[in-house]
Amino acid sequence: MSSIDISDYLADRGKLIIQDRALRVDAVKLDNLSPTEATAEEIVRAMRAEEAVSVWGAEHEDIEHPFPGMEFLTSRSVIMRTKVFNVLHKMPKGALLHAHLDATVDVKFLLDRILEQEALYVRTSTPLTTLSSTANVLPEFSPFPKSEVKLSDIQSLTDASYDGGWIPVKVARESFSPELGGPEGFDKWYIASTTINPAEAYGTHKTVEKIWEKFRDTFGVTRDVIRFSPIFRAYVREFLLSSIEDGISYVEARINFLFKTFFGPDGRNTLTHRDMLKIYGSVVQEVKDEMKSQRREDEFIGSRIIYTTIKIITPEELEWYTEDCLALKKEFPDLIAGFDLVGPEDTTKPIIDYLVPLLRFKDRQKELGLEIPFIFHAGETLGDGTAADDNLYDAVLLGTKRIGHGFSMIKHPKLMEICRERKIALEVCPISNEILRYTTSIPMHPIASVLNHGIPVCLCSDDPSAFGNLGLSFDFYQVLVSSEKTGLITLGEIALDSLKYSTLEAGEKERAIALWQKRWTEFLERIVRTGGDL
Amino acid sequence: MSSIDISDYLADRGKLIIQDRALRVDAVKLDNLSPTEATAEEIVRAMRAEEAVSVWGAEHEDIEHPFPGMEFLTSRSVIMRTKVFNVLHKMPKGALLHAHLDATVDVKFLLDRILEQEALYVRTSTPLTTLSSTANVLPEFSPFPKSEVKLSDIQSLTDASYDGGWIPVKVARESFSPELGGPEGFDKWYIASTTINPAEAYGTHKTVEKIWEKFRDTFGVTRDVIRFSPIFRAYVREFLLSSIEDGISYVEARINFLFKTFFGPDGRNTLTHRDMLKIYGSVVQEVKDEMKSQRREDEFIGSRIIYTTIKIITPEELEWYTEDCLALKKEFPDLIAGFDLVGPEDTTKPIIDYLVPLLRFKDRQKELGLEIPFIFHAGETLGDGTAADDNLYDAVLLGTKRIGHGFSMIKHPKLMEICRERKIALEVCPISNEILRYTTSIPMHPIASVLNHGIPVCLCSDDPSAFGNLGLSFDFYQVLVSSEKTGLITLGEIALDSLKYSTLEAGEKERAIALWQKRWTEFLERIVRTGGDL
Repeated sequence: MSSIDISDYLADRGKLIIQDRALRVDAVKLDNLSPTEATAEEIVRAMRAEEAVSVWGAEHEDIEHPFPGMEFLTSRSVIMRTKVFNVLHKMPKGALLHAHLDATVDVKFLLDRILEQEALYVRTSTPLTTLSSTANVLPEFSPFPKSEVKLSDIQSLTDASYDGGWIPVKVARESFSPELGGPEGFDKWYIASTTINPAEAYGTHKTVEKIWEKFRDTFGVTRDVIRFSPIFRAYVREFLLSSIEDGISYVEARINFLFKTFFGPDGRNTLTHRDMLKIYGSVVQEVKDEMKSQRREDEFIGSRIIYTTIKIITPEELEWYTEDCLALKKEFPDLIAGFDLVGPEDTTKPIIDYLVPLLRFKDRQKELGLEIPFIFHAGETLGDGTAADDNLYDAVLLGTKRIGHGFSMIKHPKLMEICRERKIALEVCPISNEILRYTTSIPMHPIASVLNHGIPVCLCSDDPSAFGNLGLSFDFYQVLVSSEKTGLITLGEIALDSLKYSTLEAGEKERAIALWQKRWTEFLERIVRTGGDL
Repeated sequence: MSSIDISDYLADRGKLIIQDRALRVDAVKLDNLSPTEATAEEIVRAMRAEEAVSVWGAEHEDIEHPFPGMEFLTSRSVIMRTKVFNVLHKMPKGALLHAHLDATVDVKFLLDRILEQEALYVRTSTPLTTLSSTANVLPEFSPFPKSEVKLSDIQSLTDASYDGGWIPVKVARESFSPELGGPEGFDKWYIASTTINPAEAYGTHKTVEKIWEKFRDTFGVTRDVIRFSPIFRAYVREFLLSSIEDGISYVEARINFLFKTFFGPDGRNTLTHRDMLKIYGSVVQEVKDEMKSQRREDEFIGSRIIYTTIKIITPEELEWYTEDCLALKKEFPDLIAGFDLVGPEDTTKPIIDYLVPLLRFKDRQKELGLEIPFIFHAGETLGDGTAADDNLYDAVLLGTKRIGHGFSMIKHPKLMEICRERKIALEVCPISNEILRYTTSIPMHPIASVLNHGIPVCLCSDDPSAFGNLGLSFDFYQVLVSSEKTGLITLGEIALDSLKYSTLEAGEKERAIALWQKRWTEFLERIVRTGGDL
């Protein structure tokens, strides 16, 4: 029998693998690792491999079939106990570039703020008399001037004769019937109405269409609460502070400006978008000052706003919003980062329906010497050749700076090429996509394909208050444990890219990157020093 | 306000979409449709659009959230009632290139054959005394010479004192306790043990790892039944005839040759692979003759075998199989189409473990002047950079003619380029991948991406007896209804490619394609003539 020389084969194989991975964000870096980088990478790889067995290969109460990257709502508590998560929680993440402001803060924090506000009232369409009715009836909140509110005669939502009128929130909570859990029952009901639970995402509502109904409801519940300026102020502050605690140093928040006015401290619906931007700007400054006073100014660069409205409006109505956005950009050039049209793409109007006002918006920017990049949601769909999938064409043709989601991008060879050439980054939201049922787990998510094809990526949380993925650690975790290619160094490159693909001005960006780089090096050194036991 | 000219934009958009779709298998064809082709395409598109609402948008008993391309085991009965399915059932499909022979025939047909055979015996590890035990205990079948079988003292599997000995199958069925459903209870138990049901795939076994356990069990149950030559003969015949009835005109079947001997009519385990190939060849000829006698010879070109063994063997053991395959190829050059290594890739040995014997196999082919292309399973995994995912590198480097599954191919930009250049087709098995939980529905399946990137594809059924997707109509259906890009014309191009990428010799292939083309044209004409009401 002839002896077989496999050395040529193995050399060819090595070359092929390098070629196949050449487009990845980590390709160059992995070829040039410092000893610290290489060691930190190995420590986290070993930790992941160990936990793939000890955590994801073990039996858990309430989890039928655990595996890395599995359904987030079922596995969140397990993730939080892992050493890998602990490392990632401490990782400097760079920028958070895709989050809808009104779904970014822990629901308990918001509930506490609601309960503090005397001008806030609550009502329901029918009395809550059984536990099942609490599951089906949503609270409606609104601020009112004390003199103008139409109070309910019955000051309890759980009284069978409750008439649907307004009740001060605190009173409604205190009078919540003991059979329904009393005040704690009220809290539970509120939290369930503003979050998605595993029974919904993985059972009763397990299609994209169904889970979006629940998801939309969560926004409906808190809508007029977050638009209430005292809460808005506290909410933005908490969003920024909690982001900083998760290692995020810069945020571009999408704010929903569909409603033309917001509620002032007096409970009147009279504040303008301009008033809200002033508040936003003052909170950002306040947080910066606080960080400075703690000698932590390197941990927070600032925050900007992506102006959004919802694709339920008519093309004619869009013009009011683009003019509004122009006026805001003129007055707050540092705060307005871009413009986007949002909503569930499979059921709202496609971008092309708004072509004329969007092109006009571009003309108007030129006229006024302003620059407001589009940062469009596009391709958040399972469709292939549907209007939602085709939104990717219009996002790219209209010159979008980044793409929100781009879940279906992997289906578009030419657009992928364009994204690579023009450095159009996808704002990938793995956990959001999974909970909203575009994918069933992260190993099935296109993120691995997208990274392998070298499409620029930033990882984002989307709507963490509804999903429970606050900060960026959870999304980084899910991506890391679902691939053998992606390691800590890859996540570092992704974090770095989040700053690169931000709308920060050149000088600011350079500073942000330098600060991140410094923290990143310290982070790696700390991993090496502690063997990953941070 | 300036007026906006959108004509340039729309022209650019049209161009971009054409560029983006240029790699698709239907790109050239869709630009050059005959009136008949165009009309047939439109009829099926309209039918699909109508049924997306009337069927998939309607309420169904037992289906919680219907949608096109949903879980097959839940929706099979709905699919079968659609007009689109009726059309596809009548479509000439070309070749079936990926099916494991011992999972290709309707389970009821096999049960009937089993019950006819007096040399077949059954046993279980414990008595079946409750319905739940029938769900957990599998039947074990084996042929025996009458004089050598060790019969059970108790001739009933459902008797509490049953001792685990062999019982003639017919007797075991007749004596099946009335509390467990009597003889029909036996049938149900048998069928449940050889098929995957929705409660398993979508409930109790809903991960790749778990469902593979059940899937493997189904093979275990029928293993020694199908290796029994009288049944083997009937099984192959039924497989070919039922394939023809579904519009398949040529088959390359993977046969599991792990066991070195098969059972003869006398019940002795003494037949060789050579004996089985003789049977296979004679059945193919028999079916050809029958088709000819019915003047339907155009509907069946023939069938060949892909020699397979399982990646549980050692690299040293492989040598026996490659030598066996060489000897068979020498004796049956027209029957042996290729060579493959099979098994669940995430848990069996990677291809590279067999590198030395596989390279030696190639050398030996040169020595003997034989050509047996590799047609490797590779990338049937959710992994990214795992050994199973890396199988794709070795399949390509070893010169595989096609790739079985290639589920993870979309993660490999360089390999995709190579597949396009070298015309390496993926044998995509959408329903198999969904039931085995690599994907949760067809809209989530990479097939749309694979088609858009212009990687050659043939659609295959894999293991239809276990999955219920007999023929190719179901797989074609799921792919058609899950995309707005893929239409009837696309399916036609895919069917045509299945013949192109087969191992048929040049002249034979030309003839097969010409025959298919003729039937395809007639099929389209019939659609146009009947408005799709075939």
